[in-house]
Amino acid sequence: MKKLINEMDKVVDECVEGFLKANKNQVKRVGNVNAIARKEAPKQGKVGIVIGGGAGHEPLFLEFIGGGMADAVAHGDIFAAPSPNVILEATRAAAGGEGVLYIYGNYEGDVMNFDMAAEMAKNEGIENETVRVWDDVASASPDEIEERRGISGDLFIIKIAGAKAETGADLEDVKSTVEKARDNTRSIGIALTSATLPNTGEKTFELGEDEMEVGMGVHGEPGVERIKIKSAEETVRTMADKVLEDLPFRSGDEVVTLVNSYGATTRLELQIVYDEFSSILEERKIDVYDAEIGAYCTTQDMAGCSITLMKLDRELKKLYNTDANSPGYKHFQE
Amino acid sequence: MKKLINEMDKVVDECVEGFLKANKNQVKRVGNVNAIARKEAPKQGKVGIVIGGGAGHEPLFLEFIGGGMADAVAHGDIFAAPSPNVILEATRAAAGGEGVLYIYGNYEGDVMNFDMAAEMAKNEGIENETVRVWDDVASASPDEIEERRGISGDLFIIKIAGAKAETGADLEDVKSTVEKARDNTRSIGIALTSATLPNTGEKTFELGEDEMEVGMGVHGEPGVERIKIKSAEETVRTMADKVLEDLPFRSGDEVVTLVNSYGATTRLELQIVYDEFSSILEERKIDVYDAEIGAYCTTQDMAGCSITLMKLDRELKKLYNTDANSPGYKHFQE
Repeated sequence: MKKLINEMDKVVDECVEGFLKANKNQVKRVGNVNAIARKEAPKQGKVGIVIGGGAGHEPLFLEFIGGGMADAVAHGDIFAAPSPNVILEATRAAAGGEGVLYIYGNYEGDVMNFDMAAEMAKNEGIENETVRVWDDVASASPDEIEERRGISGDLFIIKIAGAKAETGADLEDVKSTVEKARDNTRSIGIALTSATLPNTGEKTFELGEDEMEVGMGVHGEPGVERIKIKSAEETVRTMADKVLEDLPFRSGDEVVTLVNSYGATTRLELQIVYDEFSSILEERKIDVYDAEIGAYCTTQDMAGCSITLMKLDRELKKLYNTDANSPGYKHFQE
Repeated sequence: MKKLINEMDKVVDECVEGFLKANKNQVKRVGNVNAIARKEAPKQGKVGIVIGGGAGHEPLFLEFIGGGMADAVAHGDIFAAPSPNVILEATRAAAGGEGVLYIYGNYEGDVMNFDMAAEMAKNEGIENETVRVWDDVASASPDEIEERRGISGDLFIIKIAGAKAETGADLEDVKSTVEKARDNTRSIGIALTSATLPNTGEKTFELGEDEMEVGMGVHGEPGVERIKIKSAEETVRTMADKVLEDLPFRSGDEVVTLVNSYGATTRLELQIVYDEFSSILEERKIDVYDAEIGAYCTTQDMAGCSITLMKLDRELKKLYNTDANSPGYKHFQE
């Protein structure tokens, strides 16, 4: 395995250490675990936004704490949910008297551990609510939407949550807006290669030299079809058809989009993907308010990408436009 | 080759198209070539900052135009300098009456073509000056510093240039500050794997399964030694020794640092690298004012990383602290 690591069983701890050192003026460790909060958390009179999940998807979730983003993160091991006590530490760090909203990807381990932490937090008098992200259209049918997995849509949903919480809205209001953002967001991913996990040296799955998988999950979960590798244009059309028909996104809709690299796919390729995706949206008269391009939700060195759309309304657009300043995602107007 | 492309000979043009579409409110194409400028360029009364070089290193240089960064970019083919006419178009777009400063990596093709464009621009009455970036300590000895190549140090130098130009300083002043930034900046890179070029499908070089190369250039130029792969800790110590002794950086110096991925190296690994690098700087009592971690100067899907330091003085620190808002690099204070 050609990776810049020391011992396999320390990769997550050393990553967190490096992250803390590189952002020493913005973030702090809380408890004696991999729970990290904004330096100024908890902020009194503001709903706390707590995110988290397995490691290995950096910058998601670890690096999405900061101004206009989350207040604290519970960071698990590679592809493993954070334990309830880590989530509880993050919760305490984010709780400023107005309660806490949990946001995380809809995976069994995360659901179980966040639910346990939520109970523990309630017992400590910290009011809390939860929004699970299930943007991956390839992972279950539309009538089983609550079975879907969360992928790159996390970025927009966390951004909206951070912005809404900073308006001073109460927990019920923040939850309701974040649910709207979640319900307006759809993604789909494809994989061209497997990833090699830094904690085991193992590949996540096998994929033939001439194959790609449409709908591949961010931990290598099977997608909807394994096909011969196609051109960027054909690939994006396949992805766009599936993602656009799901909400569905219609002529006249205004959206923000993300073209996300899963790891080894380059920014050059992402721009080519966006070139095609943008043409498709134009054909369908879907108006792109803003487009993000980069690696925000990764699967280590897996080659592949995902596309995400969030349909805007007046409130979401206003919240989208506020500043976000986290180590892993920055957005601001001049 | 597992890449999201269409035709090999169109990858750069399609990348530029995608970039223009994704950033349609911020940037525009100028001429009928791959020269791209900020929408509001040229800005009257401000020195224009023109950058450029071969494609394949995205976000460098293409995505470094924007507020507090460059005004225009001349984008070449993969690993090939932009032609003089492309540079001239970028120059015209950036020229607001106070002249233009060229900043690019110190490679033969770039030097030749930028020099030709500079002559052509002078003939059109556009005053201009040049700062070549030569931060790669592995590429030539300290007494042949003008033979060194430019690598990830470009990021900090372009950031300082953009900030200085926005103060309204004249061309001579901007050049002098940017030269100082360049002279205060040192980098070194290592490669763990080769890259596959999207325009040819070829690998840039061969490297054994258990080998890494210290000092590898961003186009696969040979480094200073090819060694058995080491732990992150040993690798970073090797890199740090070479880069720190070169300026040299001394106890009491204040620096900004960059840990840069060449492509397939993940953010998890970059944090581990920074964890070690930060310890070394602490041992040597070199004070880190700010640390950037990410993929800013890439070589397609090559695994490997570079570390960069820029020594600060009062002026550079102030300029570093100003906002930068380009698609490929954002920096702001809350």
